[in-house]
Amino acid sequence: MPLAPDVLKALQTIAGADPVLTATEDLIPYSFDGTAALRQMPGCVTLPRRTDQIVQILQLANRTRTPVVTRGSGTGLSGGSLPVADSIVLCLARMDRVLDLDAANLTLRAEAGATTQAVSDAAATKGLFYPPDPGSMKISTIGGNVAENSGGLRGLKYGVTRNYVMGLEVVLPDGRILKTGNQCVKDVAGYTLKDLFVGSEGTLGVITEVLLRLIPKPAAKKTLVATYARMDQAAQTVSDIIAAQIIPCTLEFLDRTTIHCVESFAKIGLPLDCEALLLMETDGHPAVVADEADRMEAIAKKNECREIRVAKDNDEAERLASARRTAFSALARVAPTTILEDATVPRSALAEMIRFVEGVARKYQLRVGTFGHMGDGNLHPTFLTDERNTEEMHRVEQAFEEIFDKAIALGGTITGEHGIGVAKKRFLARFAGDESMRVMRELRRTLDPNGILNPGKLFD
Amino acid sequence: MPLAPDVLKALQTIAGADPVLTATEDLIPYSFDGTAALRQMPGCVTLPRRTDQIVQILQLANRTRTPVVTRGSGTGLSGGSLPVADSIVLCLARMDRVLDLDAANLTLRAEAGATTQAVSDAAATKGLFYPPDPGSMKISTIGGNVAENSGGLRGLKYGVTRNYVMGLEVVLPDGRILKTGNQCVKDVAGYTLKDLFVGSEGTLGVITEVLLRLIPKPAAKKTLVATYARMDQAAQTVSDIIAAQIIPCTLEFLDRTTIHCVESFAKIGLPLDCEALLLMETDGHPAVVADEADRMEAIAKKNECREIRVAKDNDEAERLASARRTAFSALARVAPTTILEDATVPRSALAEMIRFVEGVARKYQLRVGTFGHMGDGNLHPTFLTDERNTEEMHRVEQAFEEIFDKAIALGGTITGEHGIGVAKKRFLARFAGDESMRVMRELRRTLDPNGILNPGKLFD
Repeated sequence: MPLAPDVLKALQTIAGADPVLTATEDLIPYSFDGTAALRQMPGCVTLPRRTDQIVQILQLANRTRTPVVTRGSGTGLSGGSLPVADSIVLCLARMDRVLDLDAANLTLRAEAGATTQAVSDAAATKGLFYPPDPGSMKISTIGGNVAENSGGLRGLKYGVTRNYVMGLEVVLPDGRILKTGNQCVKDVAGYTLKDLFVGSEGTLGVITEVLLRLIPKPAAKKTLVATYARMDQAAQTVSDIIAAQIIPCTLEFLDRTTIHCVESFAKIGLPLDCEALLLMETDGHPAVVADEADRMEAIAKKNECREIRVAKDNDEAERLASARRTAFSALARVAPTTILEDATVPRSALAEMIRFVEGVARKYQLRVGTFGHMGDGNLHPTFLTDERNTEEMHRVEQAFEEIFDKAIALGGTITGEHGIGVAKKRFLARFAGDESMRVMRELRRTLDPNGILNPGKLFD
Repeated sequence: MPLAPDVLKALQTIAGADPVLTATEDLIPYSFDGTAALRQMPGCVTLPRRTDQIVQILQLANRTRTPVVTRGSGTGLSGGSLPVADSIVLCLARMDRVLDLDAANLTLRAEAGATTQAVSDAAATKGLFYPPDPGSMKISTIGGNVAENSGGLRGLKYGVTRNYVMGLEVVLPDGRILKTGNQCVKDVAGYTLKDLFVGSEGTLGVITEVLLRLIPKPAAKKTLVATYARMDQAAQTVSDIIAAQIIPCTLEFLDRTTIHCVESFAKIGLPLDCEALLLMETDGHPAVVADEADRMEAIAKKNECREIRVAKDNDEAERLASARRTAFSALARVAPTTILEDATVPRSALAEMIRFVEGVARKYQLRVGTFGHMGDGNLHPTFLTDERNTEEMHRVEQAFEEIFDKAIALGGTITGEHGIGVAKKRFLARFAGDESMRVMRELRRTLDPNGILNPGKLFD
């Protein structure tokens, strides 16, 4: 059913001075997100500036059973903000203010449309630190990060977005405003409603404001890059680092294909005759950083790394880290379509999982580059393909099916940080099991009885 | 309605060789928890040894609408495990095995009835660390800790129980088994069901097994105790430590009354002519510990502490820390009834809150000793009273009402770590607001439609 004219008319009244976009050329930029091969035109796009506008929009949508898809900058990698046909897209990009920075209580309050970078920069003005750093942080919105429970390169030591959410303002599907959480570092009064919304992918409410926990900025940091002839040596280095009771802030991995693509893209001077590269970073007190960097270097050498570089200064550290930070872009250059996944396994199963991905790629005659958060067991096998080649795309799907089944068999998960969205929803039931699916569906029905928010996502 | 004879008979069949307790003398130990002035005899007590017995017990209870109250060791401080009249008490103390310790993945799996101490000790055998340390940890069960989202003395740096729960096995009120979470450090596949159960105080399901995250054991630790003529100097010390970007693992406070009680109980040699004592501990890398201890000492001196002691060795550290660890016992000795609360405020409002508590005690002519987690803004004002004195107990209630209202007005919460239970349920609505109450009630109804689990607690 197309967006009803009276709904559109009512929307225009709510939005007031702000336009409601309906022209095809205006809708196109909102018809996809960061996920390859997914496109869907919405019915219209609204760009509210205030929570009370969102209240009215949801009341209207709920009354008229019109689907609403919330989005920030659309950088998601699972199609979580892909529009539904004839839906209202609620784009929060204009609600982008950092509202409050409280250095005494180490908290920051922002509107949902503020970018992750803006949050990070605001914290830095007071010498404070907001650790989650998803790859898209320069443009991704903090509301999107919360809705997806975004990760990043610092998860091993610092955790993910959830670990920094202290409070939320959420507009529920019926237009009521829920405020939950506060500036207290401990609070056990009632169920943890905020946690229910973190990672709910826009299916339970519209997050309009976030209260975040900050931490002191680490005083020092050291960056190391080691390359290995064999991938097992890199995996053993990771195990040995953890066994040595070092929790680095970053412990990232590139495979041979990714190393080649990165080198041809960024000209860092990486050796090309190796199976694996590890980026290791330690941060914190200068004495700890020096000690941990020394010990990680020794562990890498013990595991017969081919070469190890320790950054002498910030510039060199940035250059070495760019090997990892540019991995996705570098892979994306070499094929029309890059399909990026994030199967995740317990750390001890990592080497087995990497070998399995390589085997699956051979079996289905596909090109794959794998990189990811080795310390977290969170891999991003990235298939280099072409969405116009339907036969190859079918093989990619089969390959992913095997990869997800293997991840589940190893006690892992089908998504470490990108979410389910539409891209992985057909795998959710086999991962989560019948009971979890039943409870998740019931929770959804409880909070959004008419199913207006982001229908067709997750288990819907 | 008393426990029906046929329900009791069916229960005895389920329990098999294990007894179902019904004799008055057997029920008395289960008729209270750690909360003063609350007693209620249950209908019977079961002590299951396996999850399948719990499944059958809940199926029976759900079918016959019999209330079930789950408990561990009964150390709770908000009456969360206080029986309901004619209920089945499900005591998990016999399901106390530590099932698995995986050093490579830094995880530990245990049955819900394992004590916190057993979890902590098991972790230590591999040089690992389970940080949450509620005051009752020697006997409290890990399942109870998860149900209450327990805190402890290390919350400022290490967080609370929730931050260490990776997975749960939960029997739902209809007897179905929900398994949620896994050994992956990152997982965003679907709603975070485990977080919904953490802190739900036994109202959504029976937690039977927990999967916990461990961290490397800090290599060093240093303990300092400073005393202050004026409380404001202690509060300023706390603010200055945070402003100096130090996050100590422990930052605890005792007021004058508590210092006196502790000294007469434990003979530590504390100065008695001071308004406040701060216990400060830093842990981690030896170089950091040395540096942070020096800086905290300097900050305490800058704020004109009356005296500061830095522990020279572990023995002295234990002795100094015992000033805080014995606080509650020391206060409990001097009055027939001690009513302990845990109003919590943003750290910056702490000094105001402490003064307010003193003022309220004067106004209602009550004796109060306040101690608590100063770094967390989590105070334990403890009224020294006698539950047989109904007139004084009434004044205690009035005092608490004022304290909770003030905590809420300061942006705080009515409970930082003890939970709502029955003790604070009449304050929950004014703290949480109508929308949160509505959503919490709906969540409860969704998961436990017949309301058999722990009825009368939280908002019920």
